[in-house]
Amino acid sequence: MTTAQHTPKLTARGAATRTRIVAATADLVREHGAAGTSLDDVMAASGTSKSQLYHYFANKDDLLRAAAWQQTDRTMEAQRPELDQLDSLAGLRRWRDKFVTAHDEAGNVGGCPLGSLASELADGDPQTRTVLQKCFTAWASPLLMGLTAMRDQGRLRPDADPDALAEAIMAALQGGLLLSKTYRSSRPLARALDMAIDHVASFSTVPEAAVADRSTGTAAAKV
Amino acid sequence: MTTAQHTPKLTARGAATRTRIVAATADLVREHGAAGTSLDDVMAASGTSKSQLYHYFANKDDLLRAAAWQQTDRTMEAQRPELDQLDSLAGLRRWRDKFVTAHDEAGNVGGCPLGSLASELADGDPQTRTVLQKCFTAWASPLLMGLTAMRDQGRLRPDADPDALAEAIMAALQGGLLLSKTYRSSRPLARALDMAIDHVASFSTVPEAAVADRSTGTAAAKV
Repeated sequence: MTTAQHTPKLTARGAATRTRIVAATADLVREHGAAGTSLDDVMAASGTSKSQLYHYFANKDDLLRAAAWQQTDRTMEAQRPELDQLDSLAGLRRWRDKFVTAHDEAGNVGGCPLGSLASELADGDPQTRTVLQKCFTAWASPLLMGLTAMRDQGRLRPDADPDALAEAIMAALQGGLLLSKTYRSSRPLARALDMAIDHVASFSTVPEAAVADRSTGTAAAKV
Repeated sequence: MTTAQHTPKLTARGAATRTRIVAATADLVREHGAAGTSLDDVMAASGTSKSQLYHYFANKDDLLRAAAWQQTDRTMEAQRPELDQLDSLAGLRRWRDKFVTAHDEAGNVGGCPLGSLASELADGDPQTRTVLQKCFTAWASPLLMGLTAMRDQGRLRPDADPDALAEAIMAALQGGLLLSKTYRSSRPLARALDMAIDHVASFSTVPEAAVADRSTGTAAAKV
């Protein structure tokens, strides 16, 4: 999914300008929050005029919604190719390892840009809330697809609910990122994702794999 | 724990004034965020003067730290007595049920006031970050104590790590609250806490209880 999908047809030049505005907004919001980002800041950072800005966006909310999509794209892109290989416990562990390592390497600051936006904006404009819902759903969709494949192929028990598992993993991820940002350590994120993947493993029909995962309590890719 | 523990000795009248300022700040920050709350707003809401404000607080950061403690007190108080009875799976389920029901009854808005503050402030002032860490640690301490008792009494396996489990539960709680606020539904919160408590149950040495929990996939208090 790309932000281009959410916009009307534009000329190549128009699309480039719009992309520049959205990218600048996403950067600014990530750094200063939505409340701390003005349209003047966006114009300065993107080198665009007010008339250009209002040509592409109805208002600040509209721009923030585009920035939320942009942030979702970036977040998902950074997790590839692991994000597209979540149809096994080993794949989930590899994704977890990549995610935790990346957060560690970034100094455990910033948390989740999409989570921060949701924290700030979800109680406000309903249209923005709907976009935030769609962003989380899009991000969780590779989880949902992988877990569904595992269940449909009999590698998870029939009573495993891929939708519930995917949402619980996303909750663990979001809470883990918030606590890791607060403690400046990847420890909470790692523990939260280990819990979530161990929970998936508890539905595994491959007993030795599930036991191996559980007994070590680590996140090494074993299955 | 009360905010009084974190402040120097005051006269009864001074303490009341300080409490009024902190309560007003916590209310405003919960509604408008830290960036959206000015000292003028606090003075107006608490009926205090600038000299009174600066008598008790060095600056806005100092006031925000007191508000974080206040919010932690309120959050923990709202979960009692269940929060103090977390030394069994049944106790954890009762706490979960109370928490989810309360969030539902509140319309699934607002998320976690402490989590929202952390999302906004954890990357800023280091002293504030330290207080936010302490607030989360304080909130998680009843979980840690309950899980430690369960392990020490042999109701959880010796390889259960109460510290890791408590932190993972707090992550599930925070992420669940953020997603529930975004989706305006207690579903993500309920799923995240069910996952977390099922994970604790996977360490239970009381097999029938653990199996009963797992097989239903619900959060009813059974153990």
